[in-house]
Amino acid sequence: MDEEPPLRLRVDLSYDGAGFSGWAAQPGRRTVEGVLSETLGHVFRLPGPVRLTVAGRTDSGVHARGQVAHADLPADAWATHADAVLRRLSRALPPDLRVRSVVPAPQGFDARFSALWRRYAYRIADNPAAADPLRRFDTLWNQRPLDLDAMNEAAALLLGEHDFAAFCRKREGATTVRALRRLSWERDTDGVVVGCVLADAFCHNMVRALVGALLPVGEGSRPPSWPAQVLATAARDPAVRVVPPHGLSLEEVGYPPPGQLAARAELTRRVRVPAAPQPKRPA
Amino acid sequence: MDEEPPLRLRVDLSYDGAGFSGWAAQPGRRTVEGVLSETLGHVFRLPGPVRLTVAGRTDSGVHARGQVAHADLPADAWATHADAVLRRLSRALPPDLRVRSVVPAPQGFDARFSALWRRYAYRIADNPAAADPLRRFDTLWNQRPLDLDAMNEAAALLLGEHDFAAFCRKREGATTVRALRRLSWERDTDGVVVGCVLADAFCHNMVRALVGALLPVGEGSRPPSWPAQVLATAARDPAVRVVPPHGLSLEEVGYPPPGQLAARAELTRRVRVPAAPQPKRPA
Repeated sequence: MDEEPPLRLRVDLSYDGAGFSGWAAQPGRRTVEGVLSETLGHVFRLPGPVRLTVAGRTDSGVHARGQVAHADLPADAWATHADAVLRRLSRALPPDLRVRSVVPAPQGFDARFSALWRRYAYRIADNPAAADPLRRFDTLWNQRPLDLDAMNEAAALLLGEHDFAAFCRKREGATTVRALRRLSWERDTDGVVVGCVLADAFCHNMVRALVGALLPVGEGSRPPSWPAQVLATAARDPAVRVVPPHGLSLEEVGYPPPGQLAARAELTRRVRVPAAPQPKRPA
Repeated sequence: MDEEPPLRLRVDLSYDGAGFSGWAAQPGRRTVEGVLSETLGHVFRLPGPVRLTVAGRTDSGVHARGQVAHADLPADAWATHADAVLRRLSRALPPDLRVRSVVPAPQGFDARFSALWRRYAYRIADNPAAADPLRRFDTLWNQRPLDLDAMNEAAALLLGEHDFAAFCRKREGATTVRALRRLSWERDTDGVVVGCVLADAFCHNMVRALVGALLPVGEGSRPPSWPAQVLATAARDPAVRVVPPHGLSLEEVGYPPPGQLAARAELTRRVRVPAAPQPKRPA
């Protein structure tokens, strides 16, 4: 008898992207998915790695403080090991990957398709002389000072639902229409410029290309109207530099209340995967 | 004619201590003093390294966000290169060492002897599963949760002027009497436990031994009265563990107003260096 339905777990995790070739498992590469799925298999005493579905498939070098994944496990594995799992994970995982919580997911939960939005942060020190050496691994050092008012003016023109093809690495058969709900810049108490970028989802390279379009505006070499002009062309502009990954971190993923998880997943699948379902590589 | 008096510069700097064998220059070792004095010599086009005096002689692996040093230079070197110095330093220094400012010091300024106080911070994540992997290089991961009320109760009993020999590596001919003005613990918005330690000065290992005496109180294995009992013995207690350096950072050095700098330096020299002046190794 092997008919017991599997149990879906929600896994919340953080990682330093520097030592990983991104999220997605690849043969011969150290990836977050690879390390985590193998370690979960060990701590649940399963015969092999645990298959994972993730909210944000971060690129090589991109960090996460609020990544979310789900995994389907035999219910008895959870019942047997639940109490020990977090402690075992803390010991077994490398220091650049931490699992903050593992809990049974509410009915209808899908880490990828139930998500309402993803929020990323991009950190820039625009005075490299004054930059904190201890934060150099998650902060871009920009040689020129940035005018945040100009960047915010330019960013506001990009908000809303648009075809972001100009800021995406195109994938055949996948839409590049996204709803950008927040894109704003402020200085934190240490003087570091922090960009907040929130959308329903992101296509590949999108956050780093958006930041790359706003940097010359902040430096004064492009007018605030320029990024919106690039957007309107709906074609990749080689003048838009994709900024380095180490300043970027997936901070938070938003989900609807438990009762709406399945409906949201159904809607997302219909809108975003019109033909055959295909994995996407956002951010 | 070489009679022009040298100009004293105040240098404010930050560093990631991981790659340095502490502040003090040592032959064959990479130290903050060694790298900085050599680089200052280069950017001022001087024939050799610039001699430095520092506020806090941090140990190997200890970080600094608010270190202060002074250097005496030929006045014409400053006049010639002042405008370019900060930009040149930013380019010439390695990424783990940043100079935030270089300015002519006010009359009577001595980075070491004019200082009224030094403030250190010690960062501890007491839930290693939830710790931020990006801050693992400046945060101690403690396996057990900490009771901050108990730690603050114990810390309050250590405040004031005492002989801190119990928490210092003893040096012949140097006093271990210090005025501890603040020692308090709180949780920051990320849930990280941050200790603030402020004193007129610190003897060698003192901050890390104080934190090491408070950790078992926070874990519940020692009563809040224990660190004060250790203090009263005025002798090193092997039960006090000196915590690792990577959680520690020199955050700020306080100086009196310009008019009182020379008097303060005179007073410090008299009180702290009764016999021959000797270099100290605080923190």
